[in-house]
Amino acid sequence: MFEYTLLKEYTTRLFEKMGCPVQDAEIVADVLIAAELRGIPSHGLMRVKDYFQMVDAGRINVHPKVKVIHETPSTATVDGDNALGPISAKYSMEIAIKKANQAGTGWVATKNSNHFGIAGYYSMMALEYDMTGIAMTNANPLVVPTFSVSKFMGTNPIAVAIPTLKQPPFVADFATTPIARGKLAIMGKKGLKAPLGLVQDAQGRPTDDPDTLLHGGAILPLGGDTLTGGHKGYCMTALVDIFSSVFSGANFGPFVPPQVAYLPLLEKTVGEGLGHFFGALRVDAFRPADEFKGKMDEWIETFRGAKSGEKQPAVMIPGDPERLSELKLRKEGISIIPQVLAEMNEVAERLGVEKL
Amino acid sequence: MFEYTLLKEYTTRLFEKMGCPVQDAEIVADVLIAAELRGIPSHGLMRVKDYFQMVDAGRINVHPKVKVIHETPSTATVDGDNALGPISAKYSMEIAIKKANQAGTGWVATKNSNHFGIAGYYSMMALEYDMTGIAMTNANPLVVPTFSVSKFMGTNPIAVAIPTLKQPPFVADFATTPIARGKLAIMGKKGLKAPLGLVQDAQGRPTDDPDTLLHGGAILPLGGDTLTGGHKGYCMTALVDIFSSVFSGANFGPFVPPQVAYLPLLEKTVGEGLGHFFGALRVDAFRPADEFKGKMDEWIETFRGAKSGEKQPAVMIPGDPERLSELKLRKEGISIIPQVLAEMNEVAERLGVEKL
Repeated sequence: MFEYTLLKEYTTRLFEKMGCPVQDAEIVADVLIAAELRGIPSHGLMRVKDYFQMVDAGRINVHPKVKVIHETPSTATVDGDNALGPISAKYSMEIAIKKANQAGTGWVATKNSNHFGIAGYYSMMALEYDMTGIAMTNANPLVVPTFSVSKFMGTNPIAVAIPTLKQPPFVADFATTPIARGKLAIMGKKGLKAPLGLVQDAQGRPTDDPDTLLHGGAILPLGGDTLTGGHKGYCMTALVDIFSSVFSGANFGPFVPPQVAYLPLLEKTVGEGLGHFFGALRVDAFRPADEFKGKMDEWIETFRGAKSGEKQPAVMIPGDPERLSELKLRKEGISIIPQVLAEMNEVAERLGVEKL
Repeated sequence: MFEYTLLKEYTTRLFEKMGCPVQDAEIVADVLIAAELRGIPSHGLMRVKDYFQMVDAGRINVHPKVKVIHETPSTATVDGDNALGPISAKYSMEIAIKKANQAGTGWVATKNSNHFGIAGYYSMMALEYDMTGIAMTNANPLVVPTFSVSKFMGTNPIAVAIPTLKQPPFVADFATTPIARGKLAIMGKKGLKAPLGLVQDAQGRPTDDPDTLLHGGAILPLGGDTLTGGHKGYCMTALVDIFSSVFSGANFGPFVPPQVAYLPLLEKTVGEGLGHFFGALRVDAFRPADEFKGKMDEWIETFRGAKSGEKQPAVMIPGDPERLSELKLRKEGISIIPQVLAEMNEVAERLGVEKL
């Protein structure tokens, strides 16, 4: 069990040693530790080794000049200069917030970036300014369009954070697909079957094999096949891809560059790097801020009052599990999976940093 | 089989006779016939009777003063003055487009409105201006939050239309739930079972009874239960509700007013009428228009080239089925279900219009 600030200092030190300016190292550490705190370790310190190997292979630029290359009063396009994702993403969200201050809303498309951690981090940056924040990203292709066996889409997450008055904020942060690769792998290791509607085999047939990705299978869009609305999930995932890539000039769908060093770069590119899209909407651009936030409280209280089904737990508001996790782990400390700790220590050794 | 322009003139005449100014009657007719053309009859002429009965009961205002009540350079809030949905929705989307012309993007939240037909209609208005268009609406509650038996959400659709260069535009227009009430009713009439993951019974247990809505059951969020990602569908549907209501000042979730006259108005309100949310984004607010649209063509061509699974049809691009339907029906004419035709003719008789 590690104390939050200790982990943050340690992680910052690792990224400094990788060559990042200290303020950049702090941002990357903050984003990764936020994932740990919020109970999403798949996007947390597990990525230190991946990020390090990408930097080590010269595939990520630790001295980026992230900049706006195109703009209007409410929009900007950002060139991430092949930065670590959290660097270009945080910069982009700050631009969105600035634009919103002036124009009511701000929208930023970012190209030439990399894996950015949890989308929720950037959407939540808007909250302290009384703004709704939106963040999304495309990702490595594992997911098929409806009817297809071509893995053309990532798990493409979207996060939306909405300010409140007395209630905790509403924070929806979700992959637009039914399950992440990591969770399938865990099912496989435990010898469990995957519920139908999550994956298909190499021929595109339904399967309950959680290891099907290893044998040419793929993740289905949210909703599974067309009988259960999977074409709607396909629309959602495709939209996140298009907003992240076609708007910004990043690579789309099957051309998103791998975010781990053991996979080679793709031969064909259709843009620059991986892409994100961000939005910030001042709540008082629509109605007086306290009125908006009070009504949002009322929405949350209403939904918290929804009746649970037989043997079901209490109804949750998006963001509840992550917030409760953060409260707990800030107090009790963060436990790191032994394998992840070992990997971080290997990275530390390579960088000449004392092990944790 | 009826010719498109004949149906439009006839429908316009009906709404004029209901008291709508001629330009408003034309808008409502255009939106309803667009649904027929695009192969979505559940949102088409089937609604004439519902709209008429709502007007007849004094529950919809046929002489609305739709107006902007709050604005910033990139946003506006519109009071629909209890208009027929298509009137306040088209007005709102026009404001979004105007704002986008000035500020790069335009975002409009609309309250005090009613059922607006197909969301795709408004999103597609943006295309001729080289803008991406977004439209969404909340709707009568039929859908449960994850773990719940409380029907607190509608099928809350969202539509996004994205301009292209040579390819037909990308138009995603989908309910954020796995199935619509009408399709369940058809399954029930045919004696079919519903695939698991669409509905639950009154106790919140999985069921394959397509008539479960008649016995206290509910529609599940997209993705079904939590094992198959239903909590992500809950997030999506909730977001459409919040953007349509909390942003605008309309009623949210369980308080959305019924859109058929045979259901009484609710005792409690938390806002005014039903709500929508619209967006317009100039494509050249992010990158040169031809570059954006050419890349969008490339996205579409790539996805059209995805390999089909075993015994699966060709992969589709969102908007393909609706566009093909429109091409066919504009040429061959629109067939109307006998019951819908009979209902329209009843309305015509009440209004003193010659029957079709």
